[in-house]
Amino acid sequence: MMGDNIILLAVISLFSACQQAYYARLVGRSRMKHKVTPPAVTGPPEFERTFRAQQNCVEIYPIFLVLLWTAGTYFFQEVAAAFGLLYIFARHTYFKGYVASAKDRIPGFYLTLISLFLLLLVALLGITNGLLKTYLDVNVIKKMSHMF
Amino acid sequence: MMGDNIILLAVISLFSACQQAYYARLVGRSRMKHKVTPPAVTGPPEFERTFRAQQNCVEIYPIFLVLLWTAGTYFFQEVAAAFGLLYIFARHTYFKGYVASAKDRIPGFYLTLISLFLLLLVALLGITNGLLKTYLDVNVIKKMSHMF
Amino acid sequence: MMGDNIILLAVISLFSACQQAYYARLVGRSRMKHKVTPPAVTGPPEFERTFRAQQNCVEIYPIFLVLLWTAGTYFFQEVAAAFGLLYIFARHTYFKGYVASAKDRIPGFYLTLISLFLLLLVALLGITNGLLKTYLDVNVIKKMSHMF
Repeated sequence: MMGDNIILLAVISLFSACQQAYYARLVGRSRMKHKVTPPAVTGPPEFERTFRAQQNCVEIYPIFLVLLWTAGTYFFQEVAAAFGLLYIFARHTYFKGYVASAKDRIPGFYLTLISLFLLLLVALLGITNGLLKTYLDVNVIKKMSHMF
Repeated sequence: MMGDNIILLAVISLFSACQQAYYARLVGRSRMKHKVTPPAVTGPPEFERTFRAQQNCVEIYPIFLVLLWTAGTYFFQEVAAAFGLLYIFARHTYFKGYVASAKDRIPGFYLTLISLFLLLLVALLGITNGLLKTYLDVNVIKKMSHMF
Repeated sequence: MMGDNIILLAVISLFSACQQAYYARLVGRSRMKHKVTPPAVTGPPEFERTFRAQQNCVEIYPIFLVLLWTAGTYFFQEVAAAFGLLYIFARHTYFKGYVASAKDRIPGFYLTLISLFLLLLVALLGITNGLLKTYLDVNVIKKMSHMF
């Protein structure tokens, strides 16, 4: 079956998509709680923080997906999936913190950066290996994994 | 040729990407109509509703893409493509309604939820099958489709 | 190795994701420079232009990714990657211009449209060929590339 060696990436993508949908729902709930009728996006501080937290997740989500899939396709999907889980947890910490106060968004923000940086690192390793393999017929990752 | 069994997903993705681009253009037109010069995003109610309608589409679009491709890769691409079409129609109803009045966005909003929920359902079925197949070597979907 | 004939698409995606992340960082820096504390998104004109420039990139990015991958999978990845580079350069021109003044965003805006239009064109060619191949067993692109 097609997609066997990307199934963990699909699982993580699906999970993170549900998280994104959940945050959209939390904004909807915050609208009701604070009586902020669409299309307004300004209101009490707690609503504005909830809205900005979700917007920040919207901004970063496509970046995350690109890093996850590049890392998972060209490096190892298990590693990419693990860092993907870290990202989801980081966003959870960020969102929860931001709703509480602007300052409390900071730990989750840095954890998000760490998770994206790790994904970028393995994506770059994988892509470099992929380029060497495609254009110079050298597979460094395969050779290295034979060493262990 | 690579991508034979995902071509309908590619068609739907392309179609939905054009829809997203069209909504960005409608915001541009609404800017001109109501003389809202960038970078301003506030103005007459109709402009603000048009802008929020587009923003909502921007927020949900990556979620839709993940669901569409997971459903189409691990379940049947024809089913995913059909629900994808429903999503595009739902967004059309939503956008058109929202431009008219905040209240008129509601039918399209619920139709969007239904289309995403259907995609999620078949994506979960497909992913579960994919996990069983990969890790336990059991292919439930194939067995079931042999029953009919 | 899986993904050999999509590696240039992966490279361009990774590059563009880094660009998106960089723009998010520029907004953060502009926040500090102009003392705009989150969750506020209004402030001095330069901050608002920087923020809108990034938001516009966020809106268009998923459209770009869909066009890039459809064009690259069904037409030639080299062509898609070249237009993808043009898109990244166009966004760079747009962002830099927009930060300077609302008027200076226009050249980069039109260049962005051109790059997306070119990607759409080859995506449509590729998809049409893919549909003919899948459902009528005719491969126009292969035949044409044999002519040269």
